[in-house]
Amino acid sequence: MSNDRALPVLEPDVVPCCPPLTERTLTAEEAVRTAAMFKALGDPVRLRLFSAVASHEGGEACVCDISGVGVSQPTVSHHLKKLREAGLLASERRGTWVYYRVEPSVLAAMGQMLRHYGP
Amino acid sequence: MSNDRALPVLEPDVVPCCPPLTERTLTAEEAVRTAAMFKALGDPVRLRLFSAVASHEGGEACVCDISGVGVSQPTVSHHLKKLREAGLLASERRGTWVYYRVEPSVLAAMGQMLRHYGP
Repeated sequence: MSNDRALPVLEPDVVPCCPPLTERTLTAEEAVRTAAMFKALGDPVRLRLFSAVASHEGGEACVCDISGVGVSQPTVSHHLKKLREAGLLASERRGTWVYYRVEPSVLAAMGQMLRHYGP
Repeated sequence: MSNDRALPVLEPDVVPCCPPLTERTLTAEEAVRTAAMFKALGDPVRLRLFSAVASHEGGEACVCDISGVGVSQPTVSHHLKKLREAGLLASERRGTWVYYRVEPSVLAAMGQMLRHYGP
């Protein structure tokens, strides 16, 4: 019985981390996990690229779709890879190009943490 | 007349930056401004301290209220100052101590940017 408590039931597509920031002090483990997501959006170029992918037609984009951010294609690739490593983007190779799309569950979890401040 | 356009009318308590990340690619200026907020929460210790302030009774806390995060008081002070500089916390000196509280409008603006991903 008592073991049941140790096994959280995860909703599909819901990232369990973390409670709203107003609820309690995060544990060290929660903070490490979540800070990595915030940090990934904490660079201006990376944030612009993220918004370029997120707002692209069909919700996905390859490096070939992204222009006008003022950085080279290798730099774009580098930042998109970082965003993927932080869990914010998923990627899929199709032919020559890798296509990136937003991981909605991860973004929802971040929004959830800021939830008590929304309008 | 044309000068009027340069003077945005700000709603009280509303931080104008920025649209949801799904709407369009952020401008360079918007990205610089917003990445600084995300970056401030992109450090595990700082994120824990932020949650400690945000969840503290009355919505505010001084360094004297924060314990159990495993860092020294000077480190706590350093990180709270960084959070204030990023606009996420406001501070007020009362007697011996500086009290910090969350800037709800700034957090709301961050939540707004992630809005399309919420449940």
